[in-house]
This record gives sequence, C-alpha cells and structure tokens, in this order.
Amino acid sequence: MAVWKNTVPSKDELYESKRAALLREAAAAFNRRGFHATSLDEIAQNLGVTKAALYHYFPNKQTLLMACFEKAMDVAFDSLARARQQEATGRGRLRLTLALYLEQMLDELSACVVLMEENALTPPDHARMVQMRDRFEQALRDLVRDGIADGSIVACDPKLAMFTILGALNWIPKWFRHSGPWTATQTTAAVSDLFERMLSSAPAPALARDVGLMPLTTAK
Amino acid sequence: MAVWKNTVPSKDELYESKRAALLREAAAAFNRRGFHATSLDEIAQNLGVTKAALYHYFPNKQTLLMACFEKAMDVAFDSLARARQQEATGRGRLRLTLALYLEQMLDELSACVVLMEENALTPPDHARMVQMRDRFEQALRDLVRDGIADGSIVACDPKLAMFTILGALNWIPKWFRHSGPWTATQTTAAVSDLFERMLSSAPAPALARDVGLMPLTTAK
Repeated sequence: MAVWKNTVPSKDELYESKRAALLREAAAAFNRRGFHATSLDEIAQNLGVTKAALYHYFPNKQTLLMACFEKAMDVAFDSLARARQQEATGRGRLRLTLALYLEQMLDELSACVVLMEENALTPPDHARMVQMRDRFEQALRDLVRDGIADGSIVACDPKLAMFTILGALNWIPKWFRHSGPWTATQTTAAVSDLFERMLSSAPAPALARDVGLMPLTTAK
Repeated sequence: MAVWKNTVPSKDELYESKRAALLREAAAAFNRRGFHATSLDEIAQNLGVTKAALYHYFPNKQTLLMACFEKAMDVAFDSLARARQQEATGRGRLRLTLALYLEQMLDELSACVVLMEENALTPPDHARMVQMRDRFEQALRDLVRDGIADGSIVACDPKLAMFTILGALNWIPKWFRHSGPWTATQTTAAVSDLFERMLSSAPAPALARDVGLMPLTTAK
C-alpha cells in the first residue's frame, strides 16, 4: 500500500517495527532480571506505551517469550545460510555462522539468555523450540564434520565440540554489557578466535591479550 | 558424640547426610524443570519424606537454592586448593581446578544449572553469591595470567578466556545425562581437552573423535 508516496511507513511497516521494538525490550528485560521476575507492566513502561497497546501484539508473557525464541532461530538459520554461501571450508563456515549469529544477538536482540528460560514455555511451544534448536545444532555438527573431512578442523567429537561452543555462546549475554569495555564486534571477534583455536587444524600461535584493544568494527 | 561405639552414625552425621541428600535432589529437580516450576512437595515426594521433614532442614525454596550455590562454591574453592597443591604450571592448575569442579558437580550435585537461577535468590543472598562467584572467577583469571607468565598458556585475554570457559562449563548440566552415552569422567576429560587446546601454548594435534570411547575412569 503506497500512500504518501512511501515517504511515511505503511501500516504494515509500522506494525512490524513496533513489534520488533517490543521484542528487543522484552528480551533485554528477560535477560536482565529473568523471565519470572519481569512483568508486562515493566516492559510497557520501559517502552512508554500502555499495557493494552502491548496486548495488541502479544496476548501474554509466554507468547512474547516464544517470539523471542523464534527471532533467535531466524537469526541462527539466516547466519548459517549466509556462511554457506560465503565460505568454502567447514571451519570457515562454522566461524562465520557463529560470528553472524552472536553479533546480531548482541546488537539487535540480546536474546540468547532467553534460551535459558525454556521451562517457562507452554508444552507445545517448548516442543517446537526444541525441534528448531536441534535442527540448528545438527547443522553446526555437520559443519564440524565437513571441516574434519576437508582438513580445516582437527579430529574431534562434533557433538561435544558444539555442546561446548553453544554453551559458551549462550552464556555471553549473562556477562556482556553494551555499556561495558568491549563492543559487540570486539567480543564477537575475540570469542570467534577462541573457538577457532579450540578446533582449528592450525591453531593460532597467539590471541589478543586485551579484547578492548581489538578493532572496533569489522571489515565486512 | 561416640555412641554405640561409632557403629551407627551420630545424630550430627545423620543430619548432615540427610541434608546432603536433600540438596542433591533439589539441585537435580531445579536442573530438570527450573527453579520456578519445581515445588517443595515434589522434592519431598521424590525423597519419600514429608514436606514437614523437609522444613526441618530448609524453611523455604529460596534457602534451599542458596544452599545449592554454597555447595557449588565449596566444591569450586576446594578444587582450586587441590590444584594449587598438585600442579606447578598455570595451565596445569587451571585444567585440574576445572576438571575437579566439573566432575564433582556432575557426580554429586549437578548443581551447575542452578547457577542460572540466581534471579530467584533474595537480594542479600544474591549479593553474597555474586561475591563468592567473582572471587572464584578472579582466582581462575590469575591462573591464566600465571600460565601466560610461565609459558604454558598462549597470550590471551584472561577475562574473556574465563567468561568463555565458565559459560561452556555452566551449560554442561543442561545437556549431560547420567543415563546418556558418556560418563561424567569421559565428559570431564573431553571438555578439559577442548579447553586446554583453546589456551595451551602447545595445542594438541588431535582430540578424541568419540567421547564415548575415552577411558571410563581416571588414573587419579
């Protein structure tokens, strides 16, 4: 619907950007104080809207949590698809998938910690979330297998490698602060270097001694 | 109090072993279903005792959660002390501290995931828990610094290294199952190998390709 010659956002665009702002705020609040300690009132207040306006987008807190999971999974599969296009080796694809996923999670959504609140989902939502998460984990294990086969990744157990890496990744929003000493880009690059050293067939002889001194933006 | 010539446990010993059984059961339940979804009724039922018997040890669920944290921190500092005695290099001490901590957490308590439920603590308990946890993290960062200084650990940012390793470690009880394909000993050894490869100044040329085929018990 092109109205006002597209100089103002359409109704659909407005709906989407309001919904996205709501998701960001909810994810940040869940991360900060936990799902159970966060109220819809608080989320509405932080956004400067009424609780009634909020119900227009999500009927309750559980629906909002599930939408955070879905957004995280969208980011995950999108990162995977981009890495498969841009990188040739298993190691390159694994690194880029994780880096794209992490940087978007830190920048846009901070939703990783939400991944810890899965017990709060309704049983059908929980089952669907587990299914999506398993599919992403399987795809990552396949990248490790590809890397072992093409010689870019050391002989290792792909299942354990991914449990370990995803655990470290999911923990990051527990300690990362946008107001802290490291930017999202620096954190992503430094964590990727650590993961790569763990799994590369040619581990780097040294790593950054101070994450805060790493480049502030990526070349991408 | 030596009664019955110490052939039966004393009252104090009985109290302690009942309290320990209660902690183990609570930690396992919190890990399985999350703190908020677990009721004291359920914990009592699993132990085959009344809720009243349970109140004799812990007046409420929050006290029980704090006791889980305290137990985890006892295990952590005990592991650190033993590693400092037994190992000479920073890398050796770091590896042994984490391995002892992890294996005990998996074997005895499964309390690591409880570390994710910190928002459920009362404010004074939360402050005390954060203080203990920070002290442990600082000690681990010091081991990394020692390792860089003595040449056993690669140049790196000790703060980031420990955030990453502790994240991976804290995530393990989310996926580890005693009924699963890997024993606690195998899991501990394999995860320690991954961490060591990430930080060692001389990374191993290969890792176990199947954790389930690693030795079932340690030589220690």
